[in-house]
Amino acid sequence: MSESETPQRLAERVVEAMMAADAFSRWLGIKVLAVAPRQATVAMRIREEMVNGFGVSHGGIVYSLADSALAFAANSHGYVTVAIENSITYPQPVRVGDELTAIAEEEGASNRLGYFRVTVRRQDGTVVGLFRGTVYKTKTDYFSRDGARVSEVT
Amino acid sequence: MSESETPQRLAERVVEAMMAADAFSRWLGIKVLAVAPRQATVAMRIREEMVNGFGVSHGGIVYSLADSALAFAANSHGYVTVAIENSITYPQPVRVGDELTAIAEEEGASNRLGYFRVTVRRQDGTVVGLFRGTVYKTKTDYFSRDGARVSEVT
Amino acid sequence: MSESETPQRLAERVVEAMMAADAFSRWLGIKVLAVAPRQATVAMRIREEMVNGFGVSHGGIVYSLADSALAFAANSHGYVTVAIENSITYPQPVRVGDELTAIAEEEGASNRLGYFRVTVRRQDGTVVGLFRGTVYKTKTDYFSRDGARVSEVT
Amino acid sequence: MSESETPQRLAERVVEAMMAADAFSRWLGIKVLAVAPRQATVAMRIREEMVNGFGVSHGGIVYSLADSALAFAANSHGYVTVAIENSITYPQPVRVGDELTAIAEEEGASNRLGYFRVTVRRQDGTVVGLFRGTVYKTKTDYFSRDGARVSEVT
Repeated sequence: MSESETPQRLAERVVEAMMAADAFSRWLGIKVLAVAPRQATVAMRIREEMVNGFGVSHGGIVYSLADSALAFAANSHGYVTVAIENSITYPQPVRVGDELTAIAEEEGASNRLGYFRVTVRRQDGTVVGLFRGTVYKTKTDYFSRDGARVSEVT
Repeated sequence: MSESETPQRLAERVVEAMMAADAFSRWLGIKVLAVAPRQATVAMRIREEMVNGFGVSHGGIVYSLADSALAFAANSHGYVTVAIENSITYPQPVRVGDELTAIAEEEGASNRLGYFRVTVRRQDGTVVGLFRGTVYKTKTDYFSRDGARVSEVT
Repeated sequence: MSESETPQRLAERVVEAMMAADAFSRWLGIKVLAVAPRQATVAMRIREEMVNGFGVSHGGIVYSLADSALAFAANSHGYVTVAIENSITYPQPVRVGDELTAIAEEEGASNRLGYFRVTVRRQDGTVVGLFRGTVYKTKTDYFSRDGARVSEVT
Repeated sequence: MSESETPQRLAERVVEAMMAADAFSRWLGIKVLAVAPRQATVAMRIREEMVNGFGVSHGGIVYSLADSALAFAANSHGYVTVAIENSITYPQPVRVGDELTAIAEEEGASNRLGYFRVTVRRQDGTVVGLFRGTVYKTKTDYFSRDGARVSEVT
């Protein structure tokens, strides 16, 4: 972050760079709707190739949307963060054609750990995914990072 | 399950039918290596389009592999089961070209709930994903199910 | 619930009856500060006999406070609910003399499952516990329940 | 760890010191049955003052037993570890008089994180608790630790 850059502008720049490199989020069709320090809102539409053996959305799809939202929110301060543990519940099923929105927010923090909640809703507002993620905040600047070092710190 | 069908043959038949309908598992390139009552072993290879903003496998990919393994293991007794809550940790990163294997096994059970563990390993045997899933066992026969009823019981 | 009883009054009556039977919550010194349908706020003070091998509060103490708050909130509608899976993180340590407050709220629901969040704070407002619980809602009336039947449904 | 001390002897020495300071584990009546590097087996008996509002063991009791087992296993290498996130499921209820045994084992690890599973069984062998814990391994020697520094690293 240059001296004159605001936290808001830094968050936008990090998420833009992450999204550009994130092939799987692009395959999912994820759109970034809003970004702020430690927050992100993303959306996607469920397609035919995303269903599981029951004809509803594969659990991995809602999880992946939430995980991308978490990654954007957690890295938004410009330091590389690494996911430690995530959990998810599925209050209601998701079907082809559904438009999902995921909002990631920080619920708590300590020096090196961040605790995020991601809520996934369907177009009608129904909660279809409750996701929680714990991340480790490294001291590695996002824009000068080195993949090898990231795996070393964790 | 017909009177003369063994639990092993039923498990194979259910997983075959699930896999045939599971478009996302096919996109992932999941292969079913072994199936038994309440157990499943599956494998896949990480491709370029599966990476996240850090050039390593998106967390949703390892999760999805584990979730498919869970679904195969949990439905193998011929009654529809529904995921209630899953959690995952990522001990080591996964890269393009890695060959992953996931083994799902039941750790405990009560009347209507099943508790599964899925361990995901890289080709060198390193654990790259520790997944745990809790499922609800409905009384709906897999081969005569009706999607609407499934969402009703949960 | 008698015909003329409000949901608020029912919630209070259930929690009162639960607390009267709950020997461990009484040992912990838990006070019920507020109850409403699907919500509960409780408090307690950390005593010398609650520390672990590092001289800070044992993780089980903060967990137990949150679990009691969950139980009060989840049973407040008058039907017996059973905990399926809980998770907790500890953003900051808790010490002897700390006064903790836990707020349990429903985050989402399906027909038979409820998803609750419990946030535990220290007297200075710092979040010291983030707890999430998934419960199964039985059809058993709280005031005419039979323990044997409860374990049968789950 | 002195030069000549074996990992086994170190593990025993750490757990002995932890148990001596752990007032809550003593209130629970926890006995340490076996210790080895990254493993611990503990036991306890459910007493009248441990029940909840349903007359069965409070969920916090089984959790606390598992959490103590985790702490003993995770600190057994002589460096202070800090719990990051724990989760638990309760396959079967526990009643007054039940004798519980908890076995904690490491399932996976990275440089600074450890992933443990704790299985809690009743006297008849039935699984009554499935617990998973993720810990952060500090560089602080257990026997020369300083509480303030522990909270700093996390």
